Amino acid sequence: MLKEAIYHRPKDNFAYAYDEKTLHIRLRTKKNDVESVQLIYGDPYEWADGRWQMNRSPMKKSGSDELFDYWFISIVPPHRRLRYGFELTAGDERIIYTEKGFYREAPDDDTAYYFCFPFLNKIDVFQAPEWVKDTVWYQIFPERFANGNESLNPEGTLPWGSEDPTPISFFGGDFEGIIQHIDHLVELGINGIYLTPIFKAPSNHKYDTIDYFEIDPQFGDKQTFKRLVDLCHEKGIRVMLDAVFNHCGYYFPPFQDVLKNGENSKYKDWFHIRKFPIRTKPRPNYDTFAFTELMPKLNTENPEVKQYLLDVATYWIREFDIDGWRLDVANEVDHQFWREFRQAVKAVKPDVYILGEIWHDSMPWLRGDQFDAVMNYPFTNGALRFFAKNEVRASQFANIITNVLHSYPINVNEVSFNLLGSHDTPRMLTVCEGNKQKAKLLFLFQLSFTGTPCIYYGDEIGMTGGQDPGCRKCMIWDEKQQDRNLFEHVQKLILLRKTYRSFGSHGELKFIETNDDTNHLVYTKTYGDETILFIINNSEREINVTLPFSCKGKRLTNLWTN
Amino acid sequence: MLKEAIYHRPKDNFAYAYDEKTLHIRLRTKKNDVESVQLIYGDPYEWADGRWQMNRSPMKKSGSDELFDYWFISIVPPHRRLRYGFELTAGDERIIYTEKGFYREAPDDDTAYYFCFPFLNKIDVFQAPEWVKDTVWYQIFPERFANGNESLNPEGTLPWGSEDPTPISFFGGDFEGIIQHIDHLVELGINGIYLTPIFKAPSNHKYDTIDYFEIDPQFGDKQTFKRLVDLCHEKGIRVMLDAVFNHCGYYFPPFQDVLKNGENSKYKDWFHIRKFPIRTKPRPNYDTFAFTELMPKLNTENPEVKQYLLDVATYWIREFDIDGWRLDVANEVDHQFWREFRQAVKAVKPDVYILGEIWHDSMPWLRGDQFDAVMNYPFTNGALRFFAKNEVRASQFANIITNVLHSYPINVNEVSFNLLGSHDTPRMLTVCEGNKQKAKLLFLFQLSFTGTPCIYYGDEIGMTGGQDPGCRKCMIWDEKQQDRNLFEHVQKLILLRKTYRSFGSHGELKFIETNDDTNHLVYTKTYGDETILFIINNSEREINVTLPFSCKGKRLTNLWTN
Repeated sequence: MLKEAIYHRPKDNFAYAYDEKTLHIRLRTKKNDVESVQLIYGDPYEWADGRWQMNRSPMKKSGSDELFDYWFISIVPPHRRLRYGFELTAGDERIIYTEKGFYREAPDDDTAYYFCFPFLNKIDVFQAPEWVKDTVWYQIFPERFANGNESLNPEGTLPWGSEDPTPISFFGGDFEGIIQHIDHLVELGINGIYLTPIFKAPSNHKYDTIDYFEIDPQFGDKQTFKRLVDLCHEKGIRVMLDAVFNHCGYYFPPFQDVLKNGENSKYKDWFHIRKFPIRTKPRPNYDTFAFTELMPKLNTENPEVKQYLLDVATYWIREFDIDGWRLDVANEVDHQFWREFRQAVKAVKPDVYILGEIWHDSMPWLRGDQFDAVMNYPFTNGALRFFAKNEVRASQFANIITNVLHSYPINVNEVSFNLLGSHDTPRMLTVCEGNKQKAKLLFLFQLSFTGTPCIYYGDEIGMTGGQDPGCRKCMIWDEKQQDRNLFEHVQKLILLRKTYRSFGSHGELKFIETNDDTNHLVYTKTYGDETILFIINNSEREINVTLPFSCKGKRLTNLWTN
Repeated sequence: MLKEAIYHRPKDNFAYAYDEKTLHIRLRTKKNDVESVQLIYGDPYEWADGRWQMNRSPMKKSGSDELFDYWFISIVPPHRRLRYGFELTAGDERIIYTEKGFYREAPDDDTAYYFCFPFLNKIDVFQAPEWVKDTVWYQIFPERFANGNESLNPEGTLPWGSEDPTPISFFGGDFEGIIQHIDHLVELGINGIYLTPIFKAPSNHKYDTIDYFEIDPQFGDKQTFKRLVDLCHEKGIRVMLDAVFNHCGYYFPPFQDVLKNGENSKYKDWFHIRKFPIRTKPRPNYDTFAFTELMPKLNTENPEVKQYLLDVATYWIREFDIDGWRLDVANEVDHQFWREFRQAVKAVKPDVYILGEIWHDSMPWLRGDQFDAVMNYPFTNGALRFFAKNEVRASQFANIITNVLHSYPINVNEVSFNLLGSHDTPRMLTVCEGNKQKAKLLFLFQLSFTGTPCIYYGDEIGMTGGQDPGCRKCMIWDEKQQDRNLFEHVQKLILLRKTYRSFGSHGELKFIETNDDTNHLVYTKTYGDETILFIINNSEREINVTLPFSCKGKRLTNLWTN
């Protein structure tokens, strides 16, 4: 057995509390190298005759990626404490793997050899709101969804959909537009909307906030927003807003005060000014998002700034009963701020959802003390490479997805925010080069995957568009121009997800078969007695697939054709 | 190159902020498999002509353990943001390792491939108090250090050192005793004392607290304690107390109230009672430390309990100006409690030291939001196996120590609490089977090691004793019975550590040579221009060692003989 490939380190994705009673333990070994793994475990204080009392239970192989196999076991330690090691077997070879290294026999004279999960404290368990697992999100870029009140149009507003958007164009989308089109959302079957920023800001995207306590007048007023939230709730739809706390806009009054008063400004420590006087060219001499002088980075370590932003976060929950915060550029803000953010918002509404925008591996934010989820771009990336771009074949796709799933605890995966595109990426159909069949497979995979899927407005009716601003075109409301067939495909998938618990986040995913020649893929989703078999043919040709089990004595239903 | 052995995951010990400007990046590869590693890195927003602008810098090999080599680089990113990957070379083979896997060439069309250290936020930097690096601790078990006021003797107190201790014997050690013997500590040169619990408790060890706001009368009163702290401070000695917050004593009034009033007790949620009525036999039906009915586990998730314990923690700092808290059974208490504990105590005294008792791998407590250090038992264990027990040879010892050092960030190592024994282990001289030469080598290694060493009372004068209660004998004050030669050895090492910055925590340790035949070991400690060479002969024979460098043009001083 290849010792160098064997990996385990307690907490994070390798040893974690799944709930207040249950621990999950995982082990990584070289692919196809180990035949079986047993967990050796016990309570650290359980001794008899000078020997530590150990139990043994078999672990199961929960998946494989390109280089590794992953092993899994779920354990309920009676006293919430666990010491444990692993017994690995391959042919005649048997090794014991512990915190202190490798042994031939499992030592029982001391528990100090073993890995330690000291105590399962409920308060430390990663716990996202229960409703999230059953949510299908719909992302709305408010300026482009629907113009329901032309009297609010900003100066220079263009006729709806009259041309392709530029970085500075306005089409007058607003809350009234969303309200008027709520039936579209209800018909589709989604039950959560995520709105990109709605607070006062000069740009069309509103990521350059001027006033975090005010709605941008182009979208409507607070009363209209309240009406929107209430209507959504009435329809069973949750509402998530976008918190742009990493940076403000250039015209945010405190920053303007610093521009005016320099070192004498009482807001000078609200930002990271490297030198006075402030200059913006060739590059700003203050910290910004990227190198954009229009987005000065906020000093979230400053207690005044922290209090201000936490007041913002709780205000919109308390006054408007919103259900979630999506956190822009979340990983560039300090962890301490997010810890206090979580405490503050959950104190006001315990089941509010906290979603961080992080494009990379995100374990440090998903330990239970900060976010409930991150935008799962590694999922996006893997799915697009296989279904849309043909960059990887079936087996490599399964490797990528298995790797993503094993990068986090299962309770994290269950609420992960799985998107196929956003206002920051080319649209999925465009990545598919217009191939609707590919788009349909993408939706099938996304909607049957563990986590909480998000549909970017218009993707469900076949809208196209490249990188921003292309992906921010006006929503098409003329049904004749909508791809209703694609709409019905997505609608049907959402309905299946709602109908069968195994279809969505409650189901455990297992890759059964991947074939790189035919490029087809078979996986199951299982919840209790219910198993759904998915056979995906990601090729241009018809293929025959033999069912991976005997049908004898089983009741089979074709869920797609009913 | 063995891909399965290559490991990196951002944050923790692999990518961390060393200070507010500097990032440390580490990579693990198979031992002797890779010839050189370059870090490929840049600011994520630095693009030109559609290409990400990358830099390359060589990493150095910072050490090896049994299976792996570790590579290291220190980077100061100008805008505190970093994306990075690794270029590994061995012979003609060259691979690029990124967050998304392995490549032949470093991709420059997207930074999403790369590992991400999103932003270096000062507040998240692990920062222990500066003074700790230069502290040599001395652990006192108050009941056994010195009896300075016989009028405080508990009933049944035995004459000092008249017999070997049992689990229940009393010898009357007290604060007055410590005060009277402060010169011993000053002479030895230590500058920090850690006192095991001093609060009101029935046992001799006081880990079964009855009143966290009161001194146990057998040790003295608050005034005497204040005198002790002031005297220590006068002599440049810091004082650390023991916080037993995982559990209380059976006679803690709130627990007594629950025993008396059962479910009607207003303290019933202060503990984890699994069932009423409470029983203690055969095993307690409430959570305890181990299975000890005398130590009921406190429910530190209960806001009342939390507030009570945080009040205790801040009270002793505010009123008595103590310098540190050692946290008993720290890993069985919830992380959330410790995060709030840190905020509370650092608010009262920003440079207070927080030391957790954890015997295992402890990364989850050392991320900057909880502890400053843990009791480094993996160090203890490695050192005793090599020097005291001859269980491992020189090379394996170097492997163990290198592994310990690479399990944590360097700023964590610098304040790690390195002990050779405690009130919970057999004494080091006993583990050495009385061999004083071995004990001297152990002290040499401990006192020249990175971190903050702790001497268990009496070890410096050659006291012996097995597992508790053997290791808790009365301190020997009769100089004729003390091993003064050993005392002078420790004293000299402490003086060297104070004199040369490279000797202690400021010096970087490098193993230069290990020889399993002779069982000797050569390592250097370097700080700036100053390098100290340590040659340790862990055998019974005299050996000749060739200096690992030419002496030509160098000024050499024998620090030991001067």
